[in-house]
Amino acid sequence: MNSRFCFTKTYKDARSCARTGVIHTPHGDIETPAFVPVGTQGSVKSLSPEELIDLGTDLFFVNTYHIYLRPGLETIEKLGGLHRFMHWDRPLITDSGGFQVFSLARPKYSSKNDGEEEKGSLVKISDEGVEFQSHWDGSKHVFTPENSMQFQWRLGSDIHIAFDDCTPSGVSQKQAKASMDRTHRWALRSVSEHKKLAISHELSANRSYQALYGSIQGSTYEDLRKESSVFISSFDFDGIAIGGVSVGEGKDEMEKVLAWIAPLLPDEKPRHLLGVGEIDDVFTLVGYGIDSFDCVQPTRLARMGFAYTKDCYQLKADSLKLKAHDDFVIDISKKAYEHASGPLDPRCFCYTCQNFSRAYVHHLFKVRELFAYRLLSLHNIAFMNTLLKDIRQSIREDSFLECKNDWLYNRF
Amino acid sequence: MNSRFCFTKTYKDARSCARTGVIHTPHGDIETPAFVPVGTQGSVKSLSPEELIDLGTDLFFVNTYHIYLRPGLETIEKLGGLHRFMHWDRPLITDSGGFQVFSLARPKYSSKNDGEEEKGSLVKISDEGVEFQSHWDGSKHVFTPENSMQFQWRLGSDIHIAFDDCTPSGVSQKQAKASMDRTHRWALRSVSEHKKLAISHELSANRSYQALYGSIQGSTYEDLRKESSVFISSFDFDGIAIGGVSVGEGKDEMEKVLAWIAPLLPDEKPRHLLGVGEIDDVFTLVGYGIDSFDCVQPTRLARMGFAYTKDCYQLKADSLKLKAHDDFVIDISKKAYEHASGPLDPRCFCYTCQNFSRAYVHHLFKVRELFAYRLLSLHNIAFMNTLLKDIRQSIREDSFLECKNDWLYNRF
Repeated sequence: MNSRFCFTKTYKDARSCARTGVIHTPHGDIETPAFVPVGTQGSVKSLSPEELIDLGTDLFFVNTYHIYLRPGLETIEKLGGLHRFMHWDRPLITDSGGFQVFSLARPKYSSKNDGEEEKGSLVKISDEGVEFQSHWDGSKHVFTPENSMQFQWRLGSDIHIAFDDCTPSGVSQKQAKASMDRTHRWALRSVSEHKKLAISHELSANRSYQALYGSIQGSTYEDLRKESSVFISSFDFDGIAIGGVSVGEGKDEMEKVLAWIAPLLPDEKPRHLLGVGEIDDVFTLVGYGIDSFDCVQPTRLARMGFAYTKDCYQLKADSLKLKAHDDFVIDISKKAYEHASGPLDPRCFCYTCQNFSRAYVHHLFKVRELFAYRLLSLHNIAFMNTLLKDIRQSIREDSFLECKNDWLYNRF
Repeated sequence: MNSRFCFTKTYKDARSCARTGVIHTPHGDIETPAFVPVGTQGSVKSLSPEELIDLGTDLFFVNTYHIYLRPGLETIEKLGGLHRFMHWDRPLITDSGGFQVFSLARPKYSSKNDGEEEKGSLVKISDEGVEFQSHWDGSKHVFTPENSMQFQWRLGSDIHIAFDDCTPSGVSQKQAKASMDRTHRWALRSVSEHKKLAISHELSANRSYQALYGSIQGSTYEDLRKESSVFISSFDFDGIAIGGVSVGEGKDEMEKVLAWIAPLLPDEKPRHLLGVGEIDDVFTLVGYGIDSFDCVQPTRLARMGFAYTKDCYQLKADSLKLKAHDDFVIDISKKAYEHASGPLDPRCFCYTCQNFSRAYVHHLFKVRELFAYRLLSLHNIAFMNTLLKDIRQSIREDSFLECKNDWLYNRF
């Protein structure tokens, strides 16, 4: 069991698709549902691996595109693989690199590219793969399903993701179908290459098992999403990744998509949602049986001076209001926190909340001290992990809907 | 003993003025000679208090000027004092605020003010004190010996420094004498105010003892430095601070000044050198009986990508060369470290060196990841603390000069 990959469901909520489980990997177990912090360039910004472990993080997400460009795969191999390079000997998931590459081609994906032509010259997409230019130095590169699999094997992550055509938002059904069909062709090529690599590694060295998740596309079209779910589920992927919901579509669209696909996914495979994780989203995706999701939001918000808290929004006793994500964050730069002696969140167990006042974090943030970003990042990841722990507990107690209700509606 | 301040000498080197000791403060003991990291704005950039303690840091230096302006003394008082605000319950030293204020007046002090007139309009100096404008918002403030003492009492630090006229570099003997004379008048006013505050605190509340160091000036003039040493030593300060050697004067000048004053200082009082601490300086100042010194260099270098190491400079077997400070640092941004699998320093015990390669730190620094600054800062402080530990050990073994020789000359 230790050297292979498998998923054990441990509990299913009686009134929703929410479920708990454990993903076993050669580098350890992941309790699900799990929030997965993103270490884009090989580091969860400002935090140490030990801090992530202390916070209860089981799985670490790294972007293949970024590592491929810098420091490059040769460096990672020379330094003994990505786990060793980063000093992270727990489970590690990498993406295919496709999302970042397509973001260069389709600026709608990326806020950084505001104002650029949608059909930029940086990327050429064909059935073979995607040719693009490095955002660092303009050098040309090609990603294909085959080399994406090779890259992830060279990184040595525990969970790989198949190379897919990341459908942009707002496309016609015809365009969405073309993108989905290409995703499916690439899924087959990904599986094929992954198996070749697995066999060659099994024969030549004692590399531990590396799992592959297939990726579902289909935009916001019901028949396409359903077709993609059935198609991807029909192959022996180790898990299912759901793409194309984080980019441009609203929260309602995400819920619709999840409602279509959830019943069609094989119960015994873990499901990962790519790039979503605001507080209210978490309840939606867990409620549809998603087992893990990665999101930069907690650490990005931290660097902008926002701290998660359950206590920021006080409603009157008789009100009933769906809480949006923004209701769970405070802007620590506000003058209101200048003399605030309490912690960022009074219920939080994290190092920041146990030892520092809002006033101290406010001060450090205002004078741009590096420690501020660290204290806020640590807290926000702690907050997410606590939320997921509470959710797992509620599922085990058949009270997931009550937990959701308690978080998203204020009933004081 | 625990609630008072005192200094215990534990060993004196037989062939130099180097000595070991322990400074006892109400917040704990400081083993000397000690390197004192600077948390300018209430944080040693990127590091937690626990990390500093793990690295062996006994004493933390904070700039009164910066804290006075932001977050302000009112905030510190409301939050229970500087120790509590920063979550640092060990010994704490603050300066008088004078150095920063005079730096505004005399741009030679500060590289930030390059190109400004030496006689800027930001500061007015009189016998009463110094009027200056905040570098944040231009608001006007006055520092005097009296309110500098009040500020440091309000901060609650364990060691305060008397308000002095920080003599700029390159002045005539006449100017230096005028500045020294003012420093001496201000020393008397500082003592007087400090005693008043001590008595009123002793009567009204159970505040722990706060020590006061007198400050020696006199520029690079032998008779002035000697006069200042004798004058300042004649009052019952708890310790002696030596100012005016970090700014503009060369290393040879510092050594000359120390040679003049060392024999005149009372043996039983601890001596702090303000703002000096390059590797080769450390041996000079310890050799003249300095017990503690603060310096931003290790953390500033870290943020610029420089790591201390003893291994960066390999000399041929027959060469004998005095090593300059630069010989102890490597620039981690250099391409040479792209695939370097070893730690920053092979002899270092710190978290960075125990867990990460030069290649990883190089990568993080190149892509501007926040964790890079943290890993480098941590290492550089560890390196300094280890150096001081080695020096203390060598003094106890009467081998300080051999230790100095080993570090500053390469004999392979």
